[in-house]
Amino acid sequence: MDILQSLGNWLGNITFLQVIDFIGTFAFAISGIRLASAKQFDWFGAYVVGAATAIGGGTLRDVILDVPVFWMHDGIYLTCTGLALLWVILFRKLLVHMHNTFFIFDAIGLALFTIVGIQKTLDCGLPIWVAVVMGTMTGAAGGVIRDVLINEVPLIFRKEIYAMACVVGGIVFGISEWLGAPAKVTLLLCGTAVFLTRLLAVKYHICLPTLKSEDDENL
Amino acid sequence: MDILQSLGNWLGNITFLQVIDFIGTFAFAISGIRLASAKQFDWFGAYVVGAATAIGGGTLRDVILDVPVFWMHDGIYLTCTGLALLWVILFRKLLVHMHNTFFIFDAIGLALFTIVGIQKTLDCGLPIWVAVVMGTMTGAAGGVIRDVLINEVPLIFRKEIYAMACVVGGIVFGISEWLGAPAKVTLLLCGTAVFLTRLLAVKYHICLPTLKSEDDENL
Amino acid sequence: MDILQSLGNWLGNITFLQVIDFIGTFAFAISGIRLASAKQFDWFGAYVVGAATAIGGGTLRDVILDVPVFWMHDGIYLTCTGLALLWVILFRKLLVHMHNTFFIFDAIGLALFTIVGIQKTLDCGLPIWVAVVMGTMTGAAGGVIRDVLINEVPLIFRKEIYAMACVVGGIVFGISEWLGAPAKVTLLLCGTAVFLTRLLAVKYHICLPTLKSEDDENL
Repeated sequence: MDILQSLGNWLGNITFLQVIDFIGTFAFAISGIRLASAKQFDWFGAYVVGAATAIGGGTLRDVILDVPVFWMHDGIYLTCTGLALLWVILFRKLLVHMHNTFFIFDAIGLALFTIVGIQKTLDCGLPIWVAVVMGTMTGAAGGVIRDVLINEVPLIFRKEIYAMACVVGGIVFGISEWLGAPAKVTLLLCGTAVFLTRLLAVKYHICLPTLKSEDDENL
Repeated sequence: MDILQSLGNWLGNITFLQVIDFIGTFAFAISGIRLASAKQFDWFGAYVVGAATAIGGGTLRDVILDVPVFWMHDGIYLTCTGLALLWVILFRKLLVHMHNTFFIFDAIGLALFTIVGIQKTLDCGLPIWVAVVMGTMTGAAGGVIRDVLINEVPLIFRKEIYAMACVVGGIVFGISEWLGAPAKVTLLLCGTAVFLTRLLAVKYHICLPTLKSEDDENL
Repeated sequence: MDILQSLGNWLGNITFLQVIDFIGTFAFAISGIRLASAKQFDWFGAYVVGAATAIGGGTLRDVILDVPVFWMHDGIYLTCTGLALLWVILFRKLLVHMHNTFFIFDAIGLALFTIVGIQKTLDCGLPIWVAVVMGTMTGAAGGVIRDVLINEVPLIFRKEIYAMACVVGGIVFGISEWLGAPAKVTLLLCGTAVFLTRLLAVKYHICLPTLKSEDDENL
């Protein structure tokens, strides 16, 4: 009874942002672990690639900003990666059918991570253009580290709008703040911009132009 | 005579830990240089890969912990890497026959680096689970950076128990400290656990399970 | 009229060093963007690889030295990378004919970046050998990060004298300072040494020896 009450109190203290943070971390970790499994990594390797995907971007951000690295001060991120590994081990066969769910979770994570990166950079007293760079790094660098670790050319450099969604969200953030919108509205607009850009880009196959190689015969 | 005496004094001041540190750094650097030589790297490339293997894990740890990076304050690490390069250039043909020696040296280095990483993290006032992560990073991240630099899929993600030996050592450290064992005993138990786990895993071909790819037809 | 005068004043305040800095950053970014285009990266991917080439070495240096990361406090570096991307998009067909110009620009950048890295490290109160390592890192690590991102074995580990030019420049710096030369002379000698070493190495195809693989039958 007491335990149930404690659990209730504890759950009551979990904020909406923490739930989103957990969902995003989980989705990012799953994406790393699935790619690791395609390369026949063992459990440890899969865990490391999952963790690098989920917390790599934020770690790079914190190191460059010279602030305490976030995951060392809250065990939830590495725990969440462990749960993601367990999920992949247990429900491997179901993952294919959950493709759309994980795509939505990933886009939610991308939006939140971008907001967190922007806000943390502004809190350091840095200008908005640095914040946009850092927001994009928080959202997208984990996927780059993941692809480096599994020895593939980073996916987000060649295909789909992914990091550009963070850039769009960052620009929306900057404009909203410049127009004097309340902080909560700015955060909401930024997150929505990231999320919608990502969704629309995938739905309508919107891509950035590719750089043509100098060897190509036709311009 | 004076010179000999100075040398004697100097040698007398070298602690047991420093000897182990040197052996470990040397073995790690050798492993990087040998893999670089298989890729036809030049001397500079081999030196960099050797250094990255030997000091990469500790550098990553110090940057994330936000403490002074260790090798900048003691020339021994880069000197040791230079000696390892010289060794490979001069005694290339002997290296194959020294396989077992270097395996033991590498396992000794792994044990020491794990202990150093754990201790340094605890000295920063961080909890034990962060220390276990950092101990593992100190021991194993250098090999990952090495494999990224030579453009191979990191070996420790697919084969053998390597980083898991650090994790086992870290857990032994945590339990020993929790039981109130004296600091020296805890360090010794942790190092022994890393060393033995690594040795037994290689001797009995103990591996972690591999994640099955979703494309596999049979579970 | 006022605008022209402002522009004139502004241009008048640009120092010679800033011009060189811009040229070097531009040349480094171009090298990254061209290699990205050969891999069919999109504009975003090309921009990131260009930026990583241009500012990656300095970022790594600042993170390891634990000083504020330089490009966050001056927008010129990321702007310059954007101009480099625009240049490659617009004048792609001309790039092949500008090979020699960009080679010279790249060597100028290498020289300046080495000097900046050495000076910044000495300003931190660190010894000259750390400064030589950091100067080399500032000049050459960006190219390594570039090659990791495009999933190739780093070029400077296998071919040509590139990073070794930074090392030569660093040694010249150390000797010049040890001999008590004025600071400006030391900087000039160091930069000239890097530039000439790079030029002569390419002109006369001077290479470092390659490490022979242990599998080779003949020594």
